[in-house]
Amino acid sequence: MNYRLIFNTMGKVLIVTAVLLIIPMLVGLIYSELIVAWAFLTTALVSLVVGLILVLTCKPKTNVMFAKEGLIIVAFAWIAVSLIGAIPFTLSGEIPSYVDAVFEMVSGFTTTGASILKDVEIISHGVLFWRSFSHWIGGMGVLVFVMAITPKATDRSIHIMRAEMPGHSVDKLVPKANETAKILYIIYIVMTAVMVILLLCGGMTVFESLVHAFGTAGTGGFGIKSDSLGGYSAYVQWVVAIGMLMFGINFNMYYLLLLRKFKSIFKSTELKTYILIFIGAVVIVCFNIYPKCANFEEALRTSIFQCSSIMTTTGFSTTDFNLWNSAAKAVLIILVFIGGCAGSTAGGLKVSRVVILLKKLGNEIKRVLHPRSANIVKFEGKKLDESTISGVQSYFTIYIVMFVALFLLISMDTTYGFETDFTAVAVCFNNVGPGFGAVGPMSNFAGYSIFGKIVLSFAMLLGRLEIYPLLLALSPNTWIKK
Amino acid sequence: MNYRLIFNTMGKVLIVTAVLLIIPMLVGLIYSELIVAWAFLTTALVSLVVGLILVLTCKPKTNVMFAKEGLIIVAFAWIAVSLIGAIPFTLSGEIPSYVDAVFEMVSGFTTTGASILKDVEIISHGVLFWRSFSHWIGGMGVLVFVMAITPKATDRSIHIMRAEMPGHSVDKLVPKANETAKILYIIYIVMTAVMVILLLCGGMTVFESLVHAFGTAGTGGFGIKSDSLGGYSAYVQWVVAIGMLMFGINFNMYYLLLLRKFKSIFKSTELKTYILIFIGAVVIVCFNIYPKCANFEEALRTSIFQCSSIMTTTGFSTTDFNLWNSAAKAVLIILVFIGGCAGSTAGGLKVSRVVILLKKLGNEIKRVLHPRSANIVKFEGKKLDESTISGVQSYFTIYIVMFVALFLLISMDTTYGFETDFTAVAVCFNNVGPGFGAVGPMSNFAGYSIFGKIVLSFAMLLGRLEIYPLLLALSPNTWIKK
Repeated sequence: MNYRLIFNTMGKVLIVTAVLLIIPMLVGLIYSELIVAWAFLTTALVSLVVGLILVLTCKPKTNVMFAKEGLIIVAFAWIAVSLIGAIPFTLSGEIPSYVDAVFEMVSGFTTTGASILKDVEIISHGVLFWRSFSHWIGGMGVLVFVMAITPKATDRSIHIMRAEMPGHSVDKLVPKANETAKILYIIYIVMTAVMVILLLCGGMTVFESLVHAFGTAGTGGFGIKSDSLGGYSAYVQWVVAIGMLMFGINFNMYYLLLLRKFKSIFKSTELKTYILIFIGAVVIVCFNIYPKCANFEEALRTSIFQCSSIMTTTGFSTTDFNLWNSAAKAVLIILVFIGGCAGSTAGGLKVSRVVILLKKLGNEIKRVLHPRSANIVKFEGKKLDESTISGVQSYFTIYIVMFVALFLLISMDTTYGFETDFTAVAVCFNNVGPGFGAVGPMSNFAGYSIFGKIVLSFAMLLGRLEIYPLLLALSPNTWIKK
Repeated sequence: MNYRLIFNTMGKVLIVTAVLLIIPMLVGLIYSELIVAWAFLTTALVSLVVGLILVLTCKPKTNVMFAKEGLIIVAFAWIAVSLIGAIPFTLSGEIPSYVDAVFEMVSGFTTTGASILKDVEIISHGVLFWRSFSHWIGGMGVLVFVMAITPKATDRSIHIMRAEMPGHSVDKLVPKANETAKILYIIYIVMTAVMVILLLCGGMTVFESLVHAFGTAGTGGFGIKSDSLGGYSAYVQWVVAIGMLMFGINFNMYYLLLLRKFKSIFKSTELKTYILIFIGAVVIVCFNIYPKCANFEEALRTSIFQCSSIMTTTGFSTTDFNLWNSAAKAVLIILVFIGGCAGSTAGGLKVSRVVILLKKLGNEIKRVLHPRSANIVKFEGKKLDESTISGVQSYFTIYIVMFVALFLLISMDTTYGFETDFTAVAVCFNNVGPGFGAVGPMSNFAGYSIFGKIVLSFAMLLGRLEIYPLLLALSPNTWIKK
């Protein structure tokens, strides 16, 4: 294990975090929130000093990095930024309990958007900004961000990208990993800027536009109103609905768009499936909620908004979907598990994995009938090798196993019923945000005990990092020398 | 497709069904239930005539049978016996709606034990006997029974056994499939007889002993009291608890016991895992329900009974576990999905599949760390080949896909909430019986609409036959000639 490289990279992450913490400090100053600004400054200084010590004392003898180091760096970095990022919440006194603050911060970085705040409207601008900004950073990846701005990234840092980017496989767009990271972030910044402009056109203030653009781009879902986007105009709701859907698409598609490779985009099985599932969900939901809506536009807007929000695992809401009928709610909970496309900012199992699982299944059914038939599974025009398929199938197994384990743990915590516990774990693990029952879109997660909040924070991190990094970092086998 | 062989076998199934229908007719006569006896006799005659016509007109030119024919025979046979077996319920007037009667019959043959009866205590002895007797026949398999009593079974009828017996693979105990069927049924009959004797010793009447022995042996769960086994003595509850656990074990173990191969039994990974999961579940449940019980014996008996009942997918109850706390209920719902051992009368995903999935997963995690490590998965002392593992993983995929599809369908039916709909599908699909919420152990399935009852009947058949047979029988691709 290359410990020096791990600590050195951790140091870089802390320095970058310190720089990022300056931004909400400035927001605090603009709005004359002096205590908030002081809280962010103090935390930034601590993060900077610790980061500098790590970078200066741990100079790696070699830049050699294997999959193991990549996974462990990612796990540690995410835990570290969550623990540090939560400090200002508690220092400023706005979230007095540190466990609550960590829950809120993990929810921010993992782009979940589940909150323990009982009244978000009394929170300061600096803290609100930091919550939403963490969505934006976490969406594309904390370490991908570090790689994008660090010039001397090692050639092997693809292992970090693989460990941090969601989906069954990560392609480098260009030969160098940090160049790929830069391209991804440039696309991301441009698309976010477009969101901000469109929201400004809808009459939002600069602050509101920024916060909601971050929440949309990172598919996070933290808002600044108790009714999320329910109080905003139909125009704003349409912009956010379409925006979320765009950020749930694999970013490689946008790179292909820049390269004018339109054919490759139209041929993408994942994109087609993503759109088909989305349309199917909208049709069922719209049909079911129409009787309760004022007119067809409202029914269509609400169903498109909510399906887009849940499928991309954002979690914004324009209505209390907890009050919908069973069928519409069933569609939403299924979307929670499917999630968005691989290589997007969305969570969930990912559409690409669903497609590969179903294709393999189709192949297997053929083989039940004709045991000697060929065993070929194609995806995006290429034949998938056995190890890729097996990897996806095993991920599905561990995904379900982890979900069941988390559900069992959380059921030991509360007096909430089955619906609340099941959906609370589902929406945290899949990085969605609001669930049903006591954790519905108009409620919050404050009712869980400290134990429950720790379990759910862990669930969010597990979901965002796709299980393996955290599991390996916590496994004794990783650390015991043989 | 060998249509003649399919119809010929179907004919045999109908003739055997006719013979079986005579038994509840006799029970009806004993208890002077003349209308009931007449209903069974009429149905038996119809089944006999149709069966004879099929056997006499469709003489197969060849006995060649492939996997396809085996799967289709199984699917058709189960649908046919359910539709015919339900007729006496409606003819006798005890279940006026034929859809309800089919639900009850499917629930019987698939050993589910979910009921639409609002008051089971007003039902006649003949009908009660037939319900429970169908558990006993369905437990080991309708076609395995036909094979066991038919002398001229074809050598290829292993395809039928494979399609009907639960679990990832079916071994023939002896070279001939129908000899294997005979051995299995002899073990089954002896064990059931022991159950009957033990229950008689507990003060039950002959009728009560038979009915409960059938429900235990087939891991079905139909009782004759509104509170299931709640009103019986602690002795009876212990006998049934241990009995259910025994019938949830792979029957190959009992054959090995007869052959005195004790080493093979102790080495069985599936058996060890089954017992470990059971003990783990009992410990958690016992700890959680202890405060509400009169003493430790009651807490232990109740948790052993309920975990045994749910894990073996029987569904008897001694208490209203719907009122338990979240943790105890979470354990039960997880047991619902795991189920019993392969090659037993239990339903669910099966312990062997869970073990294989987890072993493959462990292997995959190793490969994340060391991409060149060996790719060997061992089970029961043998290296599993890729196609077996892939088969289990694909079964897991289709199992989840089917569950989600059924859940979506059932959620369109009712105004029940998430808990009821989710567990109703879970307990029907896994052939358990009672769920939570409105379908708890002291309630019934009468509240679902005709559509809902058809969906749940289909779920029970899908679960019992492990999906593929029904899916293939209903797929147009199977029938269109290319």
